[in-house]
Amino acid sequence: MSAADVIRATYELHGPAAEAERRAAALAVEQSHEFPTELAPEHSLVSLARVVGLTEVHPTLVQVQVDFPADLAGDDLSQLLVLLFGNVSLQPGVRLVDVDLPGALAQVGPGPRVGVDGLRALLGAPSRPLLATALKPVGLSTAELAARAEAFALGGIDLVKDDQGLASQRWSPYEERVAAVAEAVAAANARTGGRTLYLPTLSGPAETLERRVRLGLDAGVGGFLVLPGVGGLDEVRHVASLVPPGTPLMAHPALLGSFVADPTHGIAPELLFGPLLRLAGADVVVFPSFGGRFSFTREQCEAIAEGLRRPFGDVPAALPAPGGGMGLDRVPELLDTYGADVVLLIGGELHRGGDLRRAAEEFRAAVER
Amino acid sequence: MSAADVIRATYELHGPAAEAERRAAALAVEQSHEFPTELAPEHSLVSLARVVGLTEVHPTLVQVQVDFPADLAGDDLSQLLVLLFGNVSLQPGVRLVDVDLPGALAQVGPGPRVGVDGLRALLGAPSRPLLATALKPVGLSTAELAARAEAFALGGIDLVKDDQGLASQRWSPYEERVAAVAEAVAAANARTGGRTLYLPTLSGPAETLERRVRLGLDAGVGGFLVLPGVGGLDEVRHVASLVPPGTPLMAHPALLGSFVADPTHGIAPELLFGPLLRLAGADVVVFPSFGGRFSFTREQCEAIAEGLRRPFGDVPAALPAPGGGMGLDRVPELLDTYGADVVLLIGGELHRGGDLRRAAEEFRAAVER
Repeated sequence: MSAADVIRATYELHGPAAEAERRAAALAVEQSHEFPTELAPEHSLVSLARVVGLTEVHPTLVQVQVDFPADLAGDDLSQLLVLLFGNVSLQPGVRLVDVDLPGALAQVGPGPRVGVDGLRALLGAPSRPLLATALKPVGLSTAELAARAEAFALGGIDLVKDDQGLASQRWSPYEERVAAVAEAVAAANARTGGRTLYLPTLSGPAETLERRVRLGLDAGVGGFLVLPGVGGLDEVRHVASLVPPGTPLMAHPALLGSFVADPTHGIAPELLFGPLLRLAGADVVVFPSFGGRFSFTREQCEAIAEGLRRPFGDVPAALPAPGGGMGLDRVPELLDTYGADVVLLIGGELHRGGDLRRAAEEFRAAVER
Repeated sequence: MSAADVIRATYELHGPAAEAERRAAALAVEQSHEFPTELAPEHSLVSLARVVGLTEVHPTLVQVQVDFPADLAGDDLSQLLVLLFGNVSLQPGVRLVDVDLPGALAQVGPGPRVGVDGLRALLGAPSRPLLATALKPVGLSTAELAARAEAFALGGIDLVKDDQGLASQRWSPYEERVAAVAEAVAAANARTGGRTLYLPTLSGPAETLERRVRLGLDAGVGGFLVLPGVGGLDEVRHVASLVPPGTPLMAHPALLGSFVADPTHGIAPELLFGPLLRLAGADVVVFPSFGGRFSFTREQCEAIAEGLRRPFGDVPAALPAPGGGMGLDRVPELLDTYGADVVLLIGGELHRGGDLRRAAEEFRAAVER
C-alpha cells in the first residue's frame, strides 16, 4: 500500500506492554476483515490492514499505528468511523488518538465551509476574540427567548445559539421559536449595525432535518447548532451539504462525553473535538473548558484548540468554543489560554445581573480590553 | 408532577458518597434547564427536574433518581437522549442505569415492529433458538458474497446479515451486493422451502438512507442491519418508519462501546442494549457475548438479555443476539445462558471447515439438539 491509499490510525493500548503486539494485530483484524486471519480468502479484493508501528510509552501503555486500505471506508464518513473504532469501542483499554487520511478521502467530509476567516468576515471582526451565548433556560416562551436574543444582539454578542435543550417543546415549538428569534436578532442588528448571528439547534427526528434547515434559512438564521453525539458525525456533514456557503455550523458536545471521559478508552478529545469534527463540517466546536463544571484539564483544552487549527490534510481550521460554566471573570485566563482565535461561550452567568444587554456589553468590553 | 408526566432516570454516581447530594442536584440542573438555579425565572412554563431518591450503595457509589418533566423531551427520541445523558456524558463518574417513561412518551420510538413472535412467524420457527451469521470478510466480490449467502441459506441459517464493514466499496457497491445476495437467498429458499432472511447493512450518507431502504425492499431483503452507534438511535427509529410492518431490524453495536466500556461511566449495557434500543425499534440486538473477543461478563450478558425482554412500558420484547467470536462448541453454554429466545450469531468460525453449507447445517443441528 502506498501512503496515498492508506488511512493511518494511531491507538493507545492500555494494559501490560507484553500483550500489546498480540492486541495490535487483533485490532487490525477486528477493525477490517474481522475474520480469522488463517481463513482469509486468498482472492480478497482489498489488502489486509496491518500494524506498522508499535512504541512502548511505559510498561502499561503502548502506542500502535495501523494502516487501513483507504478503500475500506468507501468514501463514507460513517464507514470511516466504523473502520477506525466500531468494534474496538467494545474492548477496554483501546483509545484512538490520531488519524491520517489520504488526500483522496478528504471528500468523506466537507470540512468547515465557512472557517475562521469566513466567520470573522461574516461578523466584521477580523481579529478579536468572538463572543457566544446560549438562549436558555428551557421553559421560557418564544417571546421571552426572542427578547433575550434581542438583548444579547444589542449588547454585541456575535453568536446567539439555542441551548441544546431547546428542541420543539409545546411552549416553544421549533418553527415558532426560530422565526421569532431570527426576527428579533435582525431587528437588533438593524438598530446597531451589528452582525449577530442566530444559530438554532438542529436535532430531532431525521425526517424534520431538511425542512428545519430550509425554514431556518428562510427565517434568516445565521447558521445552525448541530449535535454530532446524538445524530452522528454524518449528520453534521449532511447539514453542511444542505446549507449555502457562508452558513456556519457550531457543534455541541452533548452525548460525546462517553468517547472521551475515560483516559484509557475511547477517542482522544483533541482528535474528536478537533480533526474529526472539522472533517465533518463544524466551523465552531463547543467543548467544556477547564475550570468550569466539567473535568478537562487546561492541557486537554489546549490540545483540543490545537486539534482545531493544526494541519489535517486539506481540511481548514475551525474555532474552539470553550464553555460549560464560564463567567466574565474568566475572560483574561481564557484568552491567555486560547489566544484570539476563539469563541468564548458564556451562558447562564450572563444572567446574573438581570440586565442582559448590559451583561453582553460587559462581556464584549472584557474581550476587547 | 404526576407519574404520568414524568421521566424517571436512575443514575449511579461514582465517587465519595458525601458529595452525592450536591452532585445529584447539579445533575438535575445540568440535564434540564442548565442554568444557575438561583437565577431561574419564576415564570418558567415547565417544572424543574428534581432529585427524588438517593441511596448509598457503598461509600463510593450512590444511586440517585431524578424526575424530569416529560415535556422536556418534546416527543423526540434525540432530545430524550440529550435530556437523559447529553451534558453529563462529559462528567466522569456518572452512569445512567435505568429509565422509566410515562405512557405518553412511548411514541418517541416505535418499539420493535416485528418482535419475538413476529420474527418467529416470519421464519417458521415457533420456539427453537434462531441462527444468524454475517457475510464476510470485506474484500470479497459481490458474486462471492452471494454464493456464501446462498450456502448459508441452504444450510438453514435464519438471518444472514451483512458484516458491518460492508459499506458501499468499489469492489461490491451497495446496490449490486444487495440485489445479488437477496436473489441468491431467494433462490436457496425456493430450493429448500426455507425462509432465510437477508439483512443488508444500512449505513452511509444520510441522503442515501431512504433510497437504500427502498432498493433493498424492492430486491426482496428480509430486513436491515442498523448501526445506532454511528447514526444515532433516531436513525433506527427512522428506518423503522420507512419499512413496512413485518420487516425486522437488527441493531449492531459498532461505536456503542464507549457508552458501556467504563463501569463507572456512560450508560449501563442492560439499558442501552435493552430498553433504549427496543424503544428505538430494534427487533434483534447484537452484542458481544462473554467468552469471545470482548469483555462483557456472563452476568452482564444475562442482564442485557433480561433488558430485552423485561417489561418496559408498552414496548414489546426484542431478541438478544450474542456474538463476537462465538463457535459451535459454545452453543450449549449459550443456550444455557440465554434460553431459547435468542439469535445465536456465529460469524468467522463457520468458515473454519471450508464448506459453508455444511457448517450451517451443523450449526442448525447443534441448536436443535
